[in-house]
Amino acid sequence: MHKNWHGSNAKIGVLGGGQLGRMLLQSAIDFNLQLHFLDADPNAPCALIGHSFTCGSITDFDTVYAFGKDKDLLTVEIENVSIEALEQLEKEGVLVYPQPAVLRVIKDKGTQKQFYFDHQLPTAPFHLVENRVEASRVPAPFVHKMRTGGYDGKGVQVIKNESDKINCFDEPSVVETLIPFVKELSVIVARNASGETKAFPVVECEFNPEANLVEFLFSPAEISREIEEQAEQLAIQVIEKLNMVGILAVELFLTADKLLLINEIAPRPHNSGHHTIECNVSSQFEQHLRSILNWPLGDTSIIRAGAMLNILGEKGYTGIAKYEGLEIVMALPETHVHLYGKQATKPFRKMGHLTITGATINAVREKVEVIKNSLKVVS
Amino acid sequence: MHKNWHGSNAKIGVLGGGQLGRMLLQSAIDFNLQLHFLDADPNAPCALIGHSFTCGSITDFDTVYAFGKDKDLLTVEIENVSIEALEQLEKEGVLVYPQPAVLRVIKDKGTQKQFYFDHQLPTAPFHLVENRVEASRVPAPFVHKMRTGGYDGKGVQVIKNESDKINCFDEPSVVETLIPFVKELSVIVARNASGETKAFPVVECEFNPEANLVEFLFSPAEISREIEEQAEQLAIQVIEKLNMVGILAVELFLTADKLLLINEIAPRPHNSGHHTIECNVSSQFEQHLRSILNWPLGDTSIIRAGAMLNILGEKGYTGIAKYEGLEIVMALPETHVHLYGKQATKPFRKMGHLTITGATINAVREKVEVIKNSLKVVS
Repeated sequence: MHKNWHGSNAKIGVLGGGQLGRMLLQSAIDFNLQLHFLDADPNAPCALIGHSFTCGSITDFDTVYAFGKDKDLLTVEIENVSIEALEQLEKEGVLVYPQPAVLRVIKDKGTQKQFYFDHQLPTAPFHLVENRVEASRVPAPFVHKMRTGGYDGKGVQVIKNESDKINCFDEPSVVETLIPFVKELSVIVARNASGETKAFPVVECEFNPEANLVEFLFSPAEISREIEEQAEQLAIQVIEKLNMVGILAVELFLTADKLLLINEIAPRPHNSGHHTIECNVSSQFEQHLRSILNWPLGDTSIIRAGAMLNILGEKGYTGIAKYEGLEIVMALPETHVHLYGKQATKPFRKMGHLTITGATINAVREKVEVIKNSLKVVS
Repeated sequence: MHKNWHGSNAKIGVLGGGQLGRMLLQSAIDFNLQLHFLDADPNAPCALIGHSFTCGSITDFDTVYAFGKDKDLLTVEIENVSIEALEQLEKEGVLVYPQPAVLRVIKDKGTQKQFYFDHQLPTAPFHLVENRVEASRVPAPFVHKMRTGGYDGKGVQVIKNESDKINCFDEPSVVETLIPFVKELSVIVARNASGETKAFPVVECEFNPEANLVEFLFSPAEISREIEEQAEQLAIQVIEKLNMVGILAVELFLTADKLLLINEIAPRPHNSGHHTIECNVSSQFEQHLRSILNWPLGDTSIIRAGAMLNILGEKGYTGIAKYEGLEIVMALPETHVHLYGKQATKPFRKMGHLTITGATINAVREKVEVIKNSLKVVS
C-alpha cells in the first residue's frame, strides 16, 4: 500500500458500523482516509456520521461480497462476519486485514484455544464438548463458553457447582478450568504487513460481574516491570504466530503465582484500548489504520495515567436514551466524554465511555470513585 | 440549550466547510452532535466526511437564510459570511453563536480597531483611510490592512518606506503603527451563554514572513507568569466586552517594554489552537461546541508541551497534492499528522498540520528543528 502513501486514494471498507467503527472514522479523518461501512442496523453508530454507509448484513455472503468487491482494502470492527465472503474477496485480490484465516481461528473459541495449545502459548486447560451432556461430565467448577456466537459477555458462564450444570450451553462449546486470577490484564498489539510489531503498555481491567463486561480499565496496570515485559512479549508472540496484520487485543489472567495465561483475543480495536485516545501518543484506532495500511506503527507511549469507564445502559430501562448527570461529569477536570450515538438504551448496553486522566494512577483512581455513580443512562 | 443536554436533538448548522469544520466534526462525534455544513466548494474538507453537506455560498443572503431556517443553532468556521442572513435568522429565533453583532464588529478591521479604542483595550494606534491617496499621506513605515476581505495573510502588508506606497490598497483600510514586537502570542478564550469564561494557556506563534501565515506555534509560550496572566485576562476582557458566546482567538504583540497589544481577533476555532487537540485536556474544537451549547466549559490545562507546524503547499507547485516525506514523519515519536483532505495544492495553501509533543518545550523545539523540512507538499 506504499503507493497510496497519503491514503486519499485507498477505498477502505469496514464490516460493522458500531462504536469501534465510529472512533476509527474519527481517526481516519486525520489521514484523509475514506472509510465505507457495512452494517445491518440503519441506526448503527456509523450510519449518521460516515460519509459512506451501506445497510446490509455483515454475516451474509452475497452482501459482504458485493460490498467488498470494489474496495482496495477491507477490515472489520467485529469478528462475526462472513469469513467465506472475505476469503473469496482475498482470492480476487482485495487486501483483507485481519486476514480471513486469522478471523477463522479466532471466531471459534474452540479453534482459538487449540491454536494456543498448538503454539505452546499459555492458556487455561480446556476440553471441547459438543453439547450439554458432554459438558456436564466435566467436574465443576469450570468456565463454559459457546464456541461461536458469544459477544459482549454473552455466551460465557461460570458453572460453579453440580446444580449449575442444568444451565450448560447445549451446543459446541469450550469447557475451561476456572483460573483464580489476581488481575485481568490486556495488551493491544499491532503488526503491519512489513512485520513491524508494537504493543501498547499493559492495562488492568475490572469487570462488572453481573454483565460480564469491562466496567473499569486502568492504565498503566499496577504490575512489576517483569510482568509488564512478559505480557507485551506474549502479545507480540501471539500476533506473530497468527501471522496477522492489524490490531489485536490480548486479554490475560495474572495468577497468584505470577503466571500469565491468555484468556481471549480480539483482532480489532477493543474496549480495553479506548483510553489510548487520550492517554497514549497514538490511539488504538490510529494504530489499526497504520497497521492495515502498512504504515510505520505509531508511538504507543503513555502520556497520562487514565481510567476508562463504560457508560452502560442502566438496569430496568429500555427505550430512547437519556443521560442523567452528564452536565456534572462534563464540568469535571480531565474527564472526557464519548457517546456512541445509540438512540435506544437497554440494560448493560454500551452507550458510551468516559476517560478520566491524571498525573498518577492513584489520582485517577480517586477521581473514578467520585465519578463512577454520577452518570446514568435511563429512558 | 440545557433542554437538549445530550445534544442528539440539536440541529446545528456550520457556515463554512474547511479544515476547522472538519476538526469540529471530529469532536462533535464524541458528543453525538449532528453538524450540517454549508460551503460553496463541492470539494471542501467537510464535503466528503460530514453526514450532511450543502453546497452553496456562505456569503449569499438567500442561501444562508435557506440553510439556517430549519436549524436550532448556527455557528461559523470563517467570518466572511452573510451577516445579514444571520441577523434575520436570529430575529426569527435561531440561536446564532458567535452573534451576528459580534461578527459585524470583527469582520471589518476598521470597526474592530474602533471597538478596542472605545473599550480602552490596548492595540496599536491607527487611522481609517478610504483609498490609496489617503493611505499614502501617512508617514511610512506602517502596517496597511484592508478593512474587509483579507484572510490567511492576504489583505495585510507592511509599507516600509515611501516607495512602497505605490502598493497601498486603494480601498477602505486601516493604517496602523508598526509595532516592533518581541513575540507574537495568542490566547484562545471561550464564553458560554451562562457567562462562564475560560482561556487556554498562552501560545507563541512564529510567522512565515513570505506567506504572512503562522508557520510554527509553541505551547506553552516562554513568557513570565505575569505576562501569561495579563494575556489571559486581556482575552477574557475582550470576549466579555464583545458579550460574545463561542470561542475567540486573541492575537497579541508583546513589546520589548512588556506591553501587550491586541493585533487581531477571530471568533472561531483558530490555527493557533490546533495543538490543543493533543496538548491540552480539551481541544479548542470541543471548547467551541461546549460554549455554543451552553455546556460547562472544558478543562484547558496543558498535559504536554507542543509545537504545531502548518503543512503548507510548496512554492512552485499547483495541482493534485502529493505528500513527500510523510512516511518519515509518521515514524517519528510524538508526531501527529492532520491532513485536511484538500485535493489540490498551491503555494502556501494550508494542506494540513503536524503537532509535535514532548515533556518540555525545549525537547519539542529540538524535534521541530529535525522535522521542519522533512515534509513537502508538491504536485
